[in-house]
Amino acid sequence: MSKYWGDIVEKLIPYTPGEQPKDLSLLKLNTNENPYGPSPNVLNEIKRNCNDSLRLYPDPESIKLKKLLAEHHNLSMESVFVSNGSDESLAFIFQGLLKKDKPVLFPDITYSFYPVYCQLYEVEYKQISLDQNFNISLDDYLIENGGIIFPNPNAPTGIPKSLKDIESLLSNNKNSVIVIDEAYVDFGTSSAIKLINKYENLIVTQSFSKGRSLAGMRIGCAFGSPSLIEALNRIKNSFNSYPIDRLAQISAMSSITDKIYFEGNCNKVIEARVYLEEQLESIGFEVLPSGANFIFTQHKQKSGEYIYDQLRHNKIIVRRFNSPEKISNFIRITIGTMNQMHQLVSIVREIVK
Amino acid sequence: MSKYWGDIVEKLIPYTPGEQPKDLSLLKLNTNENPYGPSPNVLNEIKRNCNDSLRLYPDPESIKLKKLLAEHHNLSMESVFVSNGSDESLAFIFQGLLKKDKPVLFPDITYSFYPVYCQLYEVEYKQISLDQNFNISLDDYLIENGGIIFPNPNAPTGIPKSLKDIESLLSNNKNSVIVIDEAYVDFGTSSAIKLINKYENLIVTQSFSKGRSLAGMRIGCAFGSPSLIEALNRIKNSFNSYPIDRLAQISAMSSITDKIYFEGNCNKVIEARVYLEEQLESIGFEVLPSGANFIFTQHKQKSGEYIYDQLRHNKIIVRRFNSPEKISNFIRITIGTMNQMHQLVSIVREIVK
Repeated sequence: MSKYWGDIVEKLIPYTPGEQPKDLSLLKLNTNENPYGPSPNVLNEIKRNCNDSLRLYPDPESIKLKKLLAEHHNLSMESVFVSNGSDESLAFIFQGLLKKDKPVLFPDITYSFYPVYCQLYEVEYKQISLDQNFNISLDDYLIENGGIIFPNPNAPTGIPKSLKDIESLLSNNKNSVIVIDEAYVDFGTSSAIKLINKYENLIVTQSFSKGRSLAGMRIGCAFGSPSLIEALNRIKNSFNSYPIDRLAQISAMSSITDKIYFEGNCNKVIEARVYLEEQLESIGFEVLPSGANFIFTQHKQKSGEYIYDQLRHNKIIVRRFNSPEKISNFIRITIGTMNQMHQLVSIVREIVK
Repeated sequence: MSKYWGDIVEKLIPYTPGEQPKDLSLLKLNTNENPYGPSPNVLNEIKRNCNDSLRLYPDPESIKLKKLLAEHHNLSMESVFVSNGSDESLAFIFQGLLKKDKPVLFPDITYSFYPVYCQLYEVEYKQISLDQNFNISLDDYLIENGGIIFPNPNAPTGIPKSLKDIESLLSNNKNSVIVIDEAYVDFGTSSAIKLINKYENLIVTQSFSKGRSLAGMRIGCAFGSPSLIEALNRIKNSFNSYPIDRLAQISAMSSITDKIYFEGNCNKVIEARVYLEEQLESIGFEVLPSGANFIFTQHKQKSGEYIYDQLRHNKIIVRRFNSPEKISNFIRITIGTMNQMHQLVSIVREIVK
């Protein structure tokens, strides 16, 4: 604390991201990164553009990237926003579209950054309990609200909602913005982007960090009606003119055009997830049904803390959340390559024996 | 306007950055980029790190980069903050250190992003007039305030303040934060970083976009006492966990270690600036004394608008500000290579003949 701090600073309790270990021999299954690197075409394009042009500012509006994203999703360019990771899109959404005189609704178990944004922008919020099976029960959201936000699939449970359920929520909640955070959508969950031209209060965020293997380059995007997107542009342009650097824009554009590589990788991850689920269930684990590149699981006898510690001891790092209580026995495991999943399963077998 | 917008969105009037023209045949002297590309070592390091590791998140704290910057400036690592361009550092400073119950002071003619941050974070401000020679008169800042911020050298005038004047302000203003925005410091102006260990209310921002030729990579930094820097970290970590991508961190680290290339480029720019000043003065221009990589100048007979338009007609793009009135006759010219300055001078000679 310092007398020079503004009021907001002392109140803030920042989000803690997953550990980025220095020990490179660890098998890192804790931050939901893709086990496969970016497409070789993406790496080549970055290298090709790594030249004197880096002395120049990037295009502040990322026009070419927006155009590609718009074509890819059959939207107008005015329905596309790009940001420094999807976290930046989410932050602007809280600041510009969810700060209202009624509370924003989100699940009690979800991406733990949401309450942090609420603190930062002084947004009132109300957390809605998951049902007993850890599902988001959308009927519980049909109450007075200043906006609704949830990830699809949800984090850290991995459980997806169907497009039908989301559309039903949209038709019953027209007075506030509904945000679908699709960071993990690429692994078998249906995107709500196809509903954007139908519902002007829908905004969807996506990331290049998971399915597209570009966590290191920080690119996220948001899709919505032009008036919602204009709100995000106004905030962005009051904050930081050029947030997406030249090589990040290049990497994102190149990734969009390399559809086959992207889909191939996502399918390999889904295949490894199915394998891991089956194996873990056969040795006494409950695995929540996942539409993501991770699973959320607990063992019927051994505690999550014990399994976490034993895995760490065996140089495998996964993620565990101390709170809330009802998920403290779970561990979240990022899906790796099939070989990594074999390795994990053989160690887990020993741990729970 | 949309019923879904939050109150703040409608009020915002975003900053307009300098034009990034599509026509690559233009001589671009409008956004103060370095005419020389990044060091070959920097480009090689980026390429060397352009590999599978891009699938992984970057270090959220940029520890290695902070360490290098700390060593470079003889500071502790806790005195260093890095951001997505120095604009991001500035934004967090307004939000966390300048939002007070008294107005922030800054010059009436200065970086036009400052009032935009004030709008965004609802910070009260008071603009202090430059003196008749377009100098910042620091005695005028010794009034009640919630903080003081100005660029050194100032923009768009380019006029530097001496370290002695800045230290005198610091000794007479201890109750609020003083921010020195050193985006253009590398071209012959003295940095206030050496005063940081002496004044706990001093914060200095710098950029990799100008002297270090990395505008395309978006890296900025701030230096201050550990408690001021902690305030910025708290805001950053409530907003976006990983704002500096892997290749941007690499490029910044590599640039810091290539001191000779950096100093050589800055000296070439200074030399070209001296040449341009002399030439323009010899044909009827008044040139404000510059410590930056640009000059601010007006002609005794021809209007700034006329010169701007004629230059554009000759495929040279410079910058002009319509308001405030007292600078509307000036043009701001980025310093290019000596060849570019020869080319510019020969065209300007024709224009003012």
